[in-house]
Amino acid sequence: MSGEQELGITESKEYNTGEWYAEVVQKAKLADYAPMGGFIVTRPRGYELWERLQDHLDGWFKETGVTNSYFPLFIPESYLEQEKDIVEGFDPEVAWVTHGGHDELEERLAVRPTSESIITPFISDWVRSHRDLPMRLNQWASVVRWEATETKPFFRTKEFLWQEGHTAHATNEGAWDEVMTRLDQYAKLYEDVLAIPVLRGSKPEHDKFPGADTTTSVEALMPDGKSVQGGTSHHLGQSFAEAYDVTFTDEDEDEQTAYTTSWGLSWRALGALIMTHSDDQGLVLPPALAPEQVVIVPIYNDENREEVMQYSSEIAAELQEAGVRVHLDDRDERNPGFKFNEWELNGVPVRFEIGGYEVEDEEVTVVHRPDGEEVVEDRADIADAVEEHLDAVFDKLYAAAEENLVENVRAVEDVNEILGTIGQHGGYVKTPWCGDDACEEAVKEKVHAEIVLVPMDDEAVPEAQLDDGEALELESDECTMCGEPAEEIAYFAKTY
Amino acid sequence: MSGEQELGITESKEYNTGEWYAEVVQKAKLADYAPMGGFIVTRPRGYELWERLQDHLDGWFKETGVTNSYFPLFIPESYLEQEKDIVEGFDPEVAWVTHGGHDELEERLAVRPTSESIITPFISDWVRSHRDLPMRLNQWASVVRWEATETKPFFRTKEFLWQEGHTAHATNEGAWDEVMTRLDQYAKLYEDVLAIPVLRGSKPEHDKFPGADTTTSVEALMPDGKSVQGGTSHHLGQSFAEAYDVTFTDEDEDEQTAYTTSWGLSWRALGALIMTHSDDQGLVLPPALAPEQVVIVPIYNDENREEVMQYSSEIAAELQEAGVRVHLDDRDERNPGFKFNEWELNGVPVRFEIGGYEVEDEEVTVVHRPDGEEVVEDRADIADAVEEHLDAVFDKLYAAAEENLVENVRAVEDVNEILGTIGQHGGYVKTPWCGDDACEEAVKEKVHAEIVLVPMDDEAVPEAQLDDGEALELESDECTMCGEPAEEIAYFAKTY
Repeated sequence: MSGEQELGITESKEYNTGEWYAEVVQKAKLADYAPMGGFIVTRPRGYELWERLQDHLDGWFKETGVTNSYFPLFIPESYLEQEKDIVEGFDPEVAWVTHGGHDELEERLAVRPTSESIITPFISDWVRSHRDLPMRLNQWASVVRWEATETKPFFRTKEFLWQEGHTAHATNEGAWDEVMTRLDQYAKLYEDVLAIPVLRGSKPEHDKFPGADTTTSVEALMPDGKSVQGGTSHHLGQSFAEAYDVTFTDEDEDEQTAYTTSWGLSWRALGALIMTHSDDQGLVLPPALAPEQVVIVPIYNDENREEVMQYSSEIAAELQEAGVRVHLDDRDERNPGFKFNEWELNGVPVRFEIGGYEVEDEEVTVVHRPDGEEVVEDRADIADAVEEHLDAVFDKLYAAAEENLVENVRAVEDVNEILGTIGQHGGYVKTPWCGDDACEEAVKEKVHAEIVLVPMDDEAVPEAQLDDGEALELESDECTMCGEPAEEIAYFAKTY
Repeated sequence: MSGEQELGITESKEYNTGEWYAEVVQKAKLADYAPMGGFIVTRPRGYELWERLQDHLDGWFKETGVTNSYFPLFIPESYLEQEKDIVEGFDPEVAWVTHGGHDELEERLAVRPTSESIITPFISDWVRSHRDLPMRLNQWASVVRWEATETKPFFRTKEFLWQEGHTAHATNEGAWDEVMTRLDQYAKLYEDVLAIPVLRGSKPEHDKFPGADTTTSVEALMPDGKSVQGGTSHHLGQSFAEAYDVTFTDEDEDEQTAYTTSWGLSWRALGALIMTHSDDQGLVLPPALAPEQVVIVPIYNDENREEVMQYSSEIAAELQEAGVRVHLDDRDERNPGFKFNEWELNGVPVRFEIGGYEVEDEEVTVVHRPDGEEVVEDRADIADAVEEHLDAVFDKLYAAAEENLVENVRAVEDVNEILGTIGQHGGYVKTPWCGDDACEEAVKEKVHAEIVLVPMDDEAVPEAQLDDGEALELESDECTMCGEPAEEIAYFAKTY
């Protein structure tokens, strides 16, 4: 069942991205499809990626005043209905629990699609005075949204894992700081851990979180030219605080209404990770997330087996001592070629090849995963050298993703050119916009691209990343679609 | 709202245990009641206890070959029904999802009560050869069991957090090793982290996990004389493997059926923790789990405020540097007496009191949480001294819990004496038993006590902990209830 034939990836990333993605996810043992459409099983190698991602983000949250908590899986229908006070036409697509054991419930319970409606009432209870603010709660949980779309592991599933943060603040400024702190942490996760550069901005009116004043997001460009919303941070203003009565007494003993925020990042980040870096040999992982950072493949024959294994074991022990996640593949029943393929499929960033020559010359042959670059290193310096190789792999991954982004942000000031550019190249098209939904609709209908972000200020979108900044300057201050004065700069893209 | 009146615990642990427990949980801000009966909200101070418990257990799991994963929240009714092949009369009391969005589902989905029926089919898929075994999967998840009982935070809730491990092995011996490895890790968690001694053994036939060959558990004695089942580890034999077709090819290429196990520990461990050590002043926590291990309360007047705060800050920085979780309570608006009470309520194991005398004499007054013992330490040695104090607090907690256990295991060889002993003292009664359920029933009906464990062998129950071992020797080898030959030794107790 596990011969070499079955091991390799058969689909092409370039020509058949969707099938290729599904094949990588399954053959690298990250996830499998559950018996119910829309659900997946996250296997140990996939879950370990999520755990390492959690470790990073959770650490940053805690350093910046966030406390974890756990709220009920179910939300009574009447609680969810209360959001209708905030959002007209709110009609959640959720899974409903109607029976407990053999009895029908008096009130239906929604399986949480997000937890504002159950968490905000408790924040209201717990906040009394300005001394209780800011209050910052987070939970790592699974949520369910009953959307009928094709299953795509980590990108589109009815149940998904995420973290949801919910905070209350005494001032509007405090809430804004919170929104941007979390957006920056999401960007840091993508850029410094996942090796994916992102753009930051706010969402147009119709695409905001229901009830939010402002929804901000980080957006990552996939190799197929579509944008992924990588994490969102919402300024909820006072709308939720008013609806759920989150008030506090200020320093003068006057009652005030708080400002709230919420922010979330899901396992979609894993989808973006897999899609961005992997290739036709399988998974490619940045060293910070890889279950094994280095795999040692000993190459021996009957005569030198013992000395090659001895040499390899000593190196493995030394790396482990130095804090590197290293695996010595000592299986006798597999040949080196099979092992190379398997560990490439599994996304191990650095491979050590150790045979008779390496033992004799006291060296190690080091091979990088993304590009197969080979370097021979001295045995004596190997623990130091490996850190440099891991950094080099990270840099290669980031550079490739950055190149894809840089080449695919285009300034366009003619509506037909928007359609042509997105239709032909994908990527982002930057254009002046009046702010009216109708102007977005015109583009959306024709090329299925929408406004994925509006820069909040120059710093929010790292233009400096773009290598030809001047070519991206917009000349007009009129909306490209209607000719009215442009209030905003819009980034159009196709989306996941 | 948060005056001293409201702060303190008003109920008595000795005379009103249930109400006292609920008050400690709420006033120490561990949990609150959700709007739906049977559900709770775990607040940051409660969730942090769970996170620290997870860190310990998850680390031990990973050191012993366990990998984490995540399976769907929902289980199709037909999958759950398949367990009827294994367990006659299986009729799960679960929450049923019947609608997704506006549509009725074709098949009802159970919110997982435990995941054997969804995990085992995947293990069946993934296991091909003996090289794939043992396979050890664990998930940290929430589960729902629709039992209509009074809500008791962490002890009895319809939704609870737990870990569930599921493993497959090539041999019966491998599965047995697994069952005992996990039981030992549960015992270690209780004894070395939670400071609660436990008894180990197996469950009588009628109390086994449905479909299991053997259910083992660790049992902790609460101060009110009832036994808590603290974690269970099940040998499932080949019954699940046969029902779900978990087979593998052995070294001779013959097809064999695997042996499976499952094991789980829930946040009930937090309930046992709170119930065991806390007192009428509030929460008491062992140092390994406490969010703050040391609180520094500065005692100053207008004249010496600056020097007391300076001295306190330096000590706080030194402890933090040494890896101690320390909090300097520098609130001006609260007096030291209020702070003492609040941090006692919150369960901080060690308090430093620092006033003018301490600064002058270069000392620190150290106070232990469980018993108020005061020791004056030299400022110079404080970082070393604090480790000893934290150890001393742990030892005091363990010793008190051990004393309660030792005093409340009684050997009894007369049925009326069983009834009298349990009715009067609670605790465990150890008696010869023929193994017949009917003999247990007789006791159960009269005093609502049941057999909570049967020692598997002498080592499984740490008799050495009992200070009067000889008095606990049983003389008869006949069942106390019916006079037939005794096959087993039964431990009767009332339970949570």
